[in-house]
Amino acid sequence: MSTDTAAPGLPSLYALSSEARELLFTEARTAYKFTDEPVGDDQLRAIWELFKWAPTASNVNPLRILYVRTPEAKERLVPLIAPPNQPKSASAPVVAVLAVDTGFAEHLPTLFPAVPQLKDAFEANPELREDNASFNSALQAAYFLLAVRAAGLAAGPMKGFDAKAVDEEFFPDGRWRSILVVNIGKPAADAWSARLPRLEYEQSVQLV
Amino acid sequence: MSTDTAAPGLPSLYALSSEARELLFTEARTAYKFTDEPVGDDQLRAIWELFKWAPTASNVNPLRILYVRTPEAKERLVPLIAPPNQPKSASAPVVAVLAVDTGFAEHLPTLFPAVPQLKDAFEANPELREDNASFNSALQAAYFLLAVRAAGLAAGPMKGFDAKAVDEEFFPDGRWRSILVVNIGKPAADAWSARLPRLEYEQSVQLV
Repeated sequence: MSTDTAAPGLPSLYALSSEARELLFTEARTAYKFTDEPVGDDQLRAIWELFKWAPTASNVNPLRILYVRTPEAKERLVPLIAPPNQPKSASAPVVAVLAVDTGFAEHLPTLFPAVPQLKDAFEANPELREDNASFNSALQAAYFLLAVRAAGLAAGPMKGFDAKAVDEEFFPDGRWRSILVVNIGKPAADAWSARLPRLEYEQSVQLV
Repeated sequence: MSTDTAAPGLPSLYALSSEARELLFTEARTAYKFTDEPVGDDQLRAIWELFKWAPTASNVNPLRILYVRTPEAKERLVPLIAPPNQPKSASAPVVAVLAVDTGFAEHLPTLFPAVPQLKDAFEANPELREDNASFNSALQAAYFLLAVRAAGLAAGPMKGFDAKAVDEEFFPDGRWRSILVVNIGKPAADAWSARLPRLEYEQSVQLV
């Protein structure tokens, strides 16, 4: 799928193996339908144990995860998802609600001890805090999606859900705020749509 | 570094090899100093050929890249970076300015042909367009960082730069807006700081 070598006979341009590139990037696809095969709590922890190491600015790590697994919890979540997306989540053994912890600055004395005043700087400046939380939680959401694939599972990320209603239902104290819903499981045989195109290199990249 | 198996003797919890996990996540680190070894244009293209496949909402793909490589271009960029970060960028053979294309909706008829009205919907709603561009460009920035590592290079992402000045200098027509600067190259021997901690699983994850 992707350019592997500069020219025939030359070494690969990647340090990452072709198998790993296929698993994470070139062959992986957003799944819309899942088998009944359960996803274990050890797998859910393994996803976190991997993606947590990828970088955030000032090591803020604002992303939090709610894993929705039980039938009772899924019954609370599925009606809050956009109707065309509901069957996708209903078929997934686990649905992750990715959320930003709006109180993330509390942990900065531990996470970024080199700059002790950072916690106060964020708490005094809501706009700075919000920008930082939005950007870094989105970075971490991307790492999370690739870590799901690294765990041998398919991910189905969805922006189509009622975030306000999800927050009221699952995060009533107002501290976590949902940003993305991700269906997780083993893909069913007909889990995929046709692959969508990408822009050309020359449309996306400039060199100076 | 990360939990590999549920218990001794059981299979790995990951489909991704331990070598790949180390390269992308568990052993990879943000680099602050680089060797003189050049980074070829074929490597820069290989990074893009890999990360472009990772998902965005409605396949919007709003991220663009300016690769700054020549001494002349670096002389324009480095003064616009926060002084403590300037030596990091000065030592990197390539500095990528990651930017959001504020006119990304133009490409939606190609990128997401199933919903032809999406372009107009975004163009009629600046807030929707801005939220979408911010979230999805940050997702793609994260994919980009892991793709740099996949290409056997070290990445040094930095939020500490004068984004307004960078935009005026490099994107004078106002269409691209910088979101992250990433130093890229082979890491020098003393490229790293001590590893920073992460939150505990129980602080970050809830299961229902």
